[in-house]
Amino acid sequence: METKEKVILDEDVIPKAWYNIQADMPELPDPPLNPQTKKPAKAEDFTPIFPMEIIRQEMSGDRWIAIPDEVREVYRLWRPTPLYRAKRLEERLKTPAKIYYKWEGVSPPGSHKPNTAVPQAYYNMKAGIERIATETGAGQWGSALSFGAMLFGMKATVYMVGASYDQKPYRRIMMETWNAEVYRSPSANTAYGRKVQAEDPKTTGSLGIAISEAVEDAATHDNVNYSIGSVLNHVVLHQTVIGLEAKLAFEQLDEYPDFICGNVGGGSNFSGATFPFVADKLSGKKPDLQIVACEPMSCPTLTKGLYLYDYGDTAGMAPILKMYTLGHTFIPPPIHAGGLRYHGDSPLLCKLVKDGYIGAVAYHQTEVFKAAKLFAETEGHIIAPESAHEVRAVIDEALRCKAEGREEVIFFNNSGHGHFDLGAYDAFLQGKLIDYEYPAELVKQALAKLPKIN
Amino acid sequence: METKEKVILDEDVIPKAWYNIQADMPELPDPPLNPQTKKPAKAEDFTPIFPMEIIRQEMSGDRWIAIPDEVREVYRLWRPTPLYRAKRLEERLKTPAKIYYKWEGVSPPGSHKPNTAVPQAYYNMKAGIERIATETGAGQWGSALSFGAMLFGMKATVYMVGASYDQKPYRRIMMETWNAEVYRSPSANTAYGRKVQAEDPKTTGSLGIAISEAVEDAATHDNVNYSIGSVLNHVVLHQTVIGLEAKLAFEQLDEYPDFICGNVGGGSNFSGATFPFVADKLSGKKPDLQIVACEPMSCPTLTKGLYLYDYGDTAGMAPILKMYTLGHTFIPPPIHAGGLRYHGDSPLLCKLVKDGYIGAVAYHQTEVFKAAKLFAETEGHIIAPESAHEVRAVIDEALRCKAEGREEVIFFNNSGHGHFDLGAYDAFLQGKLIDYEYPAELVKQALAKLPKIN
Repeated sequence: METKEKVILDEDVIPKAWYNIQADMPELPDPPLNPQTKKPAKAEDFTPIFPMEIIRQEMSGDRWIAIPDEVREVYRLWRPTPLYRAKRLEERLKTPAKIYYKWEGVSPPGSHKPNTAVPQAYYNMKAGIERIATETGAGQWGSALSFGAMLFGMKATVYMVGASYDQKPYRRIMMETWNAEVYRSPSANTAYGRKVQAEDPKTTGSLGIAISEAVEDAATHDNVNYSIGSVLNHVVLHQTVIGLEAKLAFEQLDEYPDFICGNVGGGSNFSGATFPFVADKLSGKKPDLQIVACEPMSCPTLTKGLYLYDYGDTAGMAPILKMYTLGHTFIPPPIHAGGLRYHGDSPLLCKLVKDGYIGAVAYHQTEVFKAAKLFAETEGHIIAPESAHEVRAVIDEALRCKAEGREEVIFFNNSGHGHFDLGAYDAFLQGKLIDYEYPAELVKQALAKLPKIN
Repeated sequence: METKEKVILDEDVIPKAWYNIQADMPELPDPPLNPQTKKPAKAEDFTPIFPMEIIRQEMSGDRWIAIPDEVREVYRLWRPTPLYRAKRLEERLKTPAKIYYKWEGVSPPGSHKPNTAVPQAYYNMKAGIERIATETGAGQWGSALSFGAMLFGMKATVYMVGASYDQKPYRRIMMETWNAEVYRSPSANTAYGRKVQAEDPKTTGSLGIAISEAVEDAATHDNVNYSIGSVLNHVVLHQTVIGLEAKLAFEQLDEYPDFICGNVGGGSNFSGATFPFVADKLSGKKPDLQIVACEPMSCPTLTKGLYLYDYGDTAGMAPILKMYTLGHTFIPPPIHAGGLRYHGDSPLLCKLVKDGYIGAVAYHQTEVFKAAKLFAETEGHIIAPESAHEVRAVIDEALRCKAEGREEVIFFNNSGHGHFDLGAYDAFLQGKLIDYEYPAELVKQALAKLPKIN
């Protein structure tokens, strides 16, 4: 009897509701604070940049939040995504473990990001919004939002970090093909961008600057809103479609994972894939489930950061969040996994790490790319540098299973393809990758600049 | 009741045999000729570069040729590919036609090419071959062969046309990530390459030169064979897995196409997707089925070429084939659909065109990219410039259906994604695409150099 390579569920079982882990957490994180007043943020603090339905979801404690039919219709373009059995990787490792992965690289933008870009665009369209502004670093999020906005007849304006704009023209062209307007950030399109340009005409920008430009654009124009690709509760919520589909596929296989891992940038990919399983750990249904968050050694938020209140953005204009942080002014070394260079993480994820339900591990990029190369050699797919972080963890766990003779079921979410990251693979193949030490001194300086609330 | 976006069949129904249209053609094409003797080629003419099983398949008249289990196992990595209903495109066009497409872009190399790269690698491995040499222009074929050879533990050597090597580093890196050795052609690695380099040190190469280098490499080394990505019968045969899967999906939908189209470079993608349907036209089961081959106006082999014997390669070392040809010395203008710049086409396809079973149409690249842009706006996927040729034909047919009030079922094979072709999209978006006139004078000169056999 042949073992199947993958499980692809029928479109009809695309989940009808997202899962909100807030309903099941023993203790909730401390609330976000208004950056001016330092008091708990209220719904009206967010109305200049978000539609009311997004704000409602951000603050909701309901366990299930219905997915609109119009959003499920768009999800059908690529969902359900396949759940693969990584047989060739298992054979190469000679491990008794079974390795499964969800493959989000089949979406048109090539990652998990449209799972939230599409509903965010939908709710903005329903609220009469005509244009959405956002920032993008590596380009995955900007691509996804351009795609989502286009499908609901809206414009997208993307502030793309200057360095990335220069190095990744294909990501820019992808967004433009989907009708987005892409600005090299800092741009002359906002007061903040012009100010930064004037102070430093040669700057190649940063994600913090790009966020500030996008927020300003949204806050200063009628019928224009802002959209964010990770960190906040509503983004995490939308991504649970990954974990919910994975659970259905595992039911069909009559399996349940023992070990789950995923990469963490802002935490939405990780949380979306794992929270439906974390629910079973919280409820005692699967108390011994191991869940591991994987991050880069040069931006090790969960493994080296402090659990404190900090600003969500560099300029200190965004809400203050209770989370693990390396300090909002910390700028990590230029690793290739551009999506993992955020100073903080989702408050929901951080609270679950803090309370001991989820573990964390950090890797150097050379060991990460070794894992990506082995994955490409065995499973074929050339994956994003971000996703390669969890593949490193999977390989290490599978080898531990081999050493200990354990027959474990391993699951990870393979969050996207690396078609626009081949420059990083080239550097790896040529032995030119740099493994940056953990920048302890820079973090110390950044942590000294936390808001006074702590 | 919601209409499904796509049909994805279970892995178990991946076909167990390829379909060989030679068994059902009313008349076969004239045989290939040995380029030296100009007599019909024999099996032993091919043994220096192909394994015996490939030669057997090349010459077989059997209707069904079994797919080895080991090949089906690899196919499972991405097959069956989805059959999509292009609902959003239909809605945009306001057409009563139903548009379906098979999506081959989900394979790790991103196109239909691994459907034949994998069995070719397998048969070479079984024959004790340790390395396979091939050429690549746009890079799709070289990627697929690198992938296939790697999965069966062999080395691949790819001679990549110099201009493409310089312009598409990501394709090179993809091949290297899959362990291939990639040479910029003409290279110093072969006598022929050195000769061309000496004559013209600044040359950026051509597909003809790259073929000659790969064939020389294979013919002059023990345990090294050559592999080809289109044109020949065994390549067309392997690609029928596309059309066979599509027929199964249409059965599940209780539909049958009225109009089928596909792009033609060497003809394997087109033939693989359509021949299982052509069988029903030949047998009289579906006599009115319309089948249209789509090609570029700057290399319009089927619409402007002559049906004569001509060399398969530029240097005149490959077998002489009876086909539509623009002349083996013809070099077409530098359009972005690099995979469609071959002077001839599959002899099987050409014979069916000659005998009136299949039609052909040629397009300028601006109208082709307009179609690709509309497809990206509605269906999301950013497709290869090659695939965009049939999307042009589909849109035109859907608009005819609208004008005439016809409810037709349209089917096409969407042969690959355009993630490495975004430079071409950029040129289109900036209004910089050039529509080359049909180069009648160059073709006239090339046709004057056909072999004496005609």
